[in-house]
Amino acid sequence: MRPTPSATTPAADYGDAFPSSRRIHVQGPSGTSVPMREVHLAGGEPPLRVYDTSGPRGGDVRAGLPRLREEWIRARGGIVEVGRHMLPAFAKNGRHGSAEIPDALNHKVIRGTGPVTQMHYARKGEITPEMEFVALREGMDAEFLRSEVARGRAIIPANINHPELEPMVIGRGFKVKINANIGNSAVSSSIEEEVEKLRWATLWGADTVMDLSTGKNIHQTRQWILRNSPVPIGTVPIYQALEKVEGVPEDLTWEIYRDTLIEQAEQGVDYFTVHAGVLLRYVPMTANRLTGIVSRGGSIIAKWCLSHHKESFLYTHFREICEIMAAYDVSFSLGDGLRPGSIKDANDEAQFAELKTQGELTRIAWEHGVQVMNEGPGHVPMHLIRENMEKQLEWCDEAPFYTLGPLTTDVAPGYDHITSAIGAAQIGWYGTAMLCYVTPKEHLGLPNKDDVKTGVITYKIAAHAADLAKGHPRAQEWDDAISKARFEFRWEDQFNLALDPVTARAFHDETLPAEGAKVAHFCSMCGPKFCSMKITQDVREYAAKHGMDSGTAIASGMRAKSDEFRELGGEIYVPERAAEEISAD
Amino acid sequence: MRPTPSATTPAADYGDAFPSSRRIHVQGPSGTSVPMREVHLAGGEPPLRVYDTSGPRGGDVRAGLPRLREEWIRARGGIVEVGRHMLPAFAKNGRHGSAEIPDALNHKVIRGTGPVTQMHYARKGEITPEMEFVALREGMDAEFLRSEVARGRAIIPANINHPELEPMVIGRGFKVKINANIGNSAVSSSIEEEVEKLRWATLWGADTVMDLSTGKNIHQTRQWILRNSPVPIGTVPIYQALEKVEGVPEDLTWEIYRDTLIEQAEQGVDYFTVHAGVLLRYVPMTANRLTGIVSRGGSIIAKWCLSHHKESFLYTHFREICEIMAAYDVSFSLGDGLRPGSIKDANDEAQFAELKTQGELTRIAWEHGVQVMNEGPGHVPMHLIRENMEKQLEWCDEAPFYTLGPLTTDVAPGYDHITSAIGAAQIGWYGTAMLCYVTPKEHLGLPNKDDVKTGVITYKIAAHAADLAKGHPRAQEWDDAISKARFEFRWEDQFNLALDPVTARAFHDETLPAEGAKVAHFCSMCGPKFCSMKITQDVREYAAKHGMDSGTAIASGMRAKSDEFRELGGEIYVPERAAEEISAD
Repeated sequence: MRPTPSATTPAADYGDAFPSSRRIHVQGPSGTSVPMREVHLAGGEPPLRVYDTSGPRGGDVRAGLPRLREEWIRARGGIVEVGRHMLPAFAKNGRHGSAEIPDALNHKVIRGTGPVTQMHYARKGEITPEMEFVALREGMDAEFLRSEVARGRAIIPANINHPELEPMVIGRGFKVKINANIGNSAVSSSIEEEVEKLRWATLWGADTVMDLSTGKNIHQTRQWILRNSPVPIGTVPIYQALEKVEGVPEDLTWEIYRDTLIEQAEQGVDYFTVHAGVLLRYVPMTANRLTGIVSRGGSIIAKWCLSHHKESFLYTHFREICEIMAAYDVSFSLGDGLRPGSIKDANDEAQFAELKTQGELTRIAWEHGVQVMNEGPGHVPMHLIRENMEKQLEWCDEAPFYTLGPLTTDVAPGYDHITSAIGAAQIGWYGTAMLCYVTPKEHLGLPNKDDVKTGVITYKIAAHAADLAKGHPRAQEWDDAISKARFEFRWEDQFNLALDPVTARAFHDETLPAEGAKVAHFCSMCGPKFCSMKITQDVREYAAKHGMDSGTAIASGMRAKSDEFRELGGEIYVPERAAEEISAD
Repeated sequence: MRPTPSATTPAADYGDAFPSSRRIHVQGPSGTSVPMREVHLAGGEPPLRVYDTSGPRGGDVRAGLPRLREEWIRARGGIVEVGRHMLPAFAKNGRHGSAEIPDALNHKVIRGTGPVTQMHYARKGEITPEMEFVALREGMDAEFLRSEVARGRAIIPANINHPELEPMVIGRGFKVKINANIGNSAVSSSIEEEVEKLRWATLWGADTVMDLSTGKNIHQTRQWILRNSPVPIGTVPIYQALEKVEGVPEDLTWEIYRDTLIEQAEQGVDYFTVHAGVLLRYVPMTANRLTGIVSRGGSIIAKWCLSHHKESFLYTHFREICEIMAAYDVSFSLGDGLRPGSIKDANDEAQFAELKTQGELTRIAWEHGVQVMNEGPGHVPMHLIRENMEKQLEWCDEAPFYTLGPLTTDVAPGYDHITSAIGAAQIGWYGTAMLCYVTPKEHLGLPNKDDVKTGVITYKIAAHAADLAKGHPRAQEWDDAISKARFEFRWEDQFNLALDPVTARAFHDETLPAEGAKVAHFCSMCGPKFCSMKITQDVREYAAKHGMDSGTAIASGMRAKSDEFRELGGEIYVPERAAEEISAD
C-alpha cells in the first residue's frame, strides 16, 4: 500500500519553487482579496505568511491573467474607451517586427477624461481599492498609506490599462521593493523567453519588472508581458522612439516621443523612465569623467541636446508629458541619465546637477497629480552612498528613491550582483524605496533565466536586510521563524522558509543526501560530534529546567545545580545519547 | 606558419586563473623580496600591480614550500632546537589516524628562549625583515607599521616554525584582509583535498586560512597544510584537545589542552582561536536566546564550565597560555564563543559581556608581548553593526577586530556568502581588520572547491569595497584601471583585471563567443545600436576636441560649437559608422 499524502502537506501552488507553501488570500473590508504565500511548518509551529509577488499561476499565457482591477477602475468613472490600439503605423521598414499578438491579449483601451491617478484620489481623501489592497499586503494602516501617496512620499504604479496588476506600493515607509530588468536586444532572445523571464522573476520575488527591449517586436513583446504581469511594468519609452527613427538620436522629435508615450500608456505600462533631467549645460560636466555617460537614455538625450543645441523635448514638453501620464495613471521614474558609471565618477557635479533638476520636475509632476519616483546611481563607494540619499530626500521633497545597486566597487565583473547588493542594502536602509537588481552578467552579457533568479534572490536579501535595519514591523518574524527551525533541527522547515528552498535543499543534500539526515541533529559541516547547536540546545534545556535564566541564578546556588548537573550527567544533556554518535562539540 | 606568441604576453604564472598576469618581486632595502601580481594590459596602458597571496606555485606538495623566513628567524637568535616533534602519543584508540607525513614535511622544531614575537621586537624599536616585507607589500612606511605592531593595533601572525610564510599584517590601518576556513570533518573530505583547498583559496586571494579539521588525522592534515602554506594558518586547538578525550568536553583538562597548544605551536600554527572569554556567569545569559550558543568552541567551554562549576582552564591558565604563545610567536585570535547565531540574538548581554572580557585578556596578552586580535559576530542586522565595532575598539584598546560576516539576515541559506558580504563590507569600512569568509554552503554543508572560490571572491569584494570606503591609498587604482578598460572597450583587459577573470570571460562568451566580439565596441547587453559607452565616448572626444571641458564653455559660444557639430555630423561622433551597424543608443 502506498502512503497517502499527509493532511498537513498543502498542495504545491508554486510548482517546485516553494514546497510546503500555499497561496492564500486575506480578505479586506471592501472585498479586496490579497494573496499571500503561507509556509506550512512542522512541530506544531504556526504557518508563516510572507509577501507574494508571483501572481495567479498555471494559466494560459495566450489568454493573459484575470483582470482583477477592472471593476474598481470602471466603478470610479472618469474614463472613456478609445477603441483597440493598433501597432504603431509610422514605423518604417517593418521595424516593429512581425510577431503576432493573440486576440485575447488585445484589450479595450481606456483613458481618463481628467487625472485618474492614485495620487489624485488620495489627495481627495479617497481610499481606493488599490490602496486597501496595498495596505493589507503591507500590514499597514490604509489611511497612513493614503496620506503617504497624497504627500508624494509613496506611489502605487497602476495604469488603468493594466487591470491584471496586483497593486503594490513604493515608498520609504513600506517594505523595500526590488525591480528586475528583462527585455530582448537586437542580439538575442525571443518574446516567449521574455514572458517566461517575467513569470520567473515574479515567482522569486520581483516587485516590479522593467521591459527594456530594444530589438524588433518591442510593441508585441510589451503586450504579451503586460497581459501576463501581476506586477507593475516599467519601460524607457525613448528606446522605442529611437527605433522609430531608425536609431538616429538627432532625428527624434517631440511628436514621435509623445506618440510613443501614448502607445505605451494605452498598452498599460505602469511607469516610464524619463530622462528629463539631462540638461544641455550638464553634458560637458561629463567630459572629464573616467566613464562619461553610461545611461543609454542619458546618452541619447545628451547627443540630441548637443546636436540641436537645445534643451531636450523631455524637458521643454514636460508638462504635456505629465498630462498624458495623468490620464492613464502612469508614474514617473525620473531617470538619472548622468549617473556615475565607475567609482571614480561617483557623486560628481554632473550627477548632482541632474538630481537637483529631478527635484524641480518632481514638483511639476505633482502639480499635475502624477506619481513620481527618482532614479539614482549606479557606481558609488560605500562612504559616498549616504550623501546620495540625503540629497535626494532634500532636493526631491522625499519622493521615493529608486536606485540601481549601487555597485560599491568596479573590480568584480561576473559578481556585480554582489558588489551592488552591498550598496543596495545600505541605501535601502537609509531610505531608498526600490532597488533595481543587478545580475551576475552585468557589464558582460544578457541575463539568462538562472541569472534573473540569482539577481532577484540577491536583491530580496538586500531589501530584506534593509527592512530589518529599518525596523519594518513584519520583517523579523521571518528571520526568527527560520532561525528557530535551524536551532530545532527542523531541516525541512529551514529549507521551506528559505528565500530559495530549492538551492538550500540541494546544497544540504550534496554532502548528506539521505532522507534520514534531514531529521538528524547534526549536519555535514561539523559531523555528529561537533554540533554546537545540539550542545547549546542541551544547555538551554538544562538551564530552563533549573531556572538558570539570569545571572542571579548563578549567585544563588549554582554550586548545587552544578553538582546535580554532574550527577545527572549525559542523561540530561543528551537524552538519546550513544557514545559513538554524539559527544560534545 | 603558426603565429609566435606576442612579446607582450607574459607567461601564465597562475595557470588559467589569471591570464596575462605575471608574478614579479619588489625588492626591499634589506634584501626582502615581495611578490606581487602584475597584470599586463593592452593599448599602451601601464601594468597594474596587485597584492598577491598565492605563494610560490608549481612545486611538489610532498616537499613543501621554500623556507623564506628561515634565515631571518635564525639571525635574530634567542631560539633553541627542540628536536623533531612527534605524533601525539596520548591519543587513545588510534584516534589520531593513520595518515602519513612525508619525510620532507617533518621539520626541525624551534622554540624561543624568551618572547620572540613581532610585537616584542617592535616594542624594542626593531624593524624585522617580516615588517619590512609587510610594509613593502602594503605600500606603507615600515616605521609606521612597526609602531602599529608595538601598540597592538596591528599584528603579523608569524610562528617561528612556519618559515614558509610570506608575512602579512592584520590591522585597521592596512588593507582589509580575508580568512578562508577549510578542514575536514568526520563526515567528509581527505588530507589531499584540504591541501588543494588551501592552495586554491590563496590563489584567489585568501590572506589567512583556518584549518578547522575535526575528524581523524588532524595532526597530519595540519602538517601538510603548514608546509604548503604561504599564508598564516589559524586553528581552534580545543577541537583537537576534544578528540584526545574521545569527544567528552567534561573530560578536558588544562594539561591536555596545554600539550595540544605546544604540539600545534611546534608545527607552526600562526594563530590560535582561544575562547577564554566564555565565563561561567555568562552562560545562563544565553538561555533565553533564540539560538543559544552557536560557536563550537563556545559550547564546549560552556558545557565544561557548567559541568565543573568553575571558570574554564582557558581563563584560569591564561597567563601560561600567553607564555607558550610568546615562545613561538603564535598570535591570539580571542574567540567569541557567545556570538549571536541569529538576528534576534544580536548585540545581547551575553555577547557584549564576553567582548568586555576579551578586552581584559587582550591587555594581559600584551603584557606578555603576545600579538592579539579579537573575533566578532556572527548574525547582526545592519543597524546594529556599528555598535560592535565601536565597543570592540573601546573595550579591546583598538586590537584588530576579526569578524565572521556578519550575516545581515537569516532567511537565505544557500546565499549566506551574500547575506554576510553585506555586513562584512560595512564592518570592514568601520574598521574591522580581517573578515572571515562565509561560503554558499554555510548552515547547510561543507564547502567544496567551487564554494571556497565563491566565498573568497565574495569576501575579496567586501574587503576591497571597505578599502575604497576607508580611502586605502592603493585601492582605487584597481577600480580606475578596470573602468578605463571597460570604457575603452578593451574587453581582454577588463577580463584580466577582474577579481575572477575566468568567470568574467565565460559570462561574456556565453552570448558573444566569437573572438571578434572582444574587440567590438558593443556587447550583447544592448547590441550594436544601444551602447551608451560608445556614444558617451564620442561625446567625450568631441568635447575634448572643442574645449568643452566645463560649464563655462557653454556660455562662451556653445551655439557656434553646436552648429559646427551638426555640420560635421556623424563623422565626428562615429568615425567608422555604418548606418546599419551603429546608430545611437
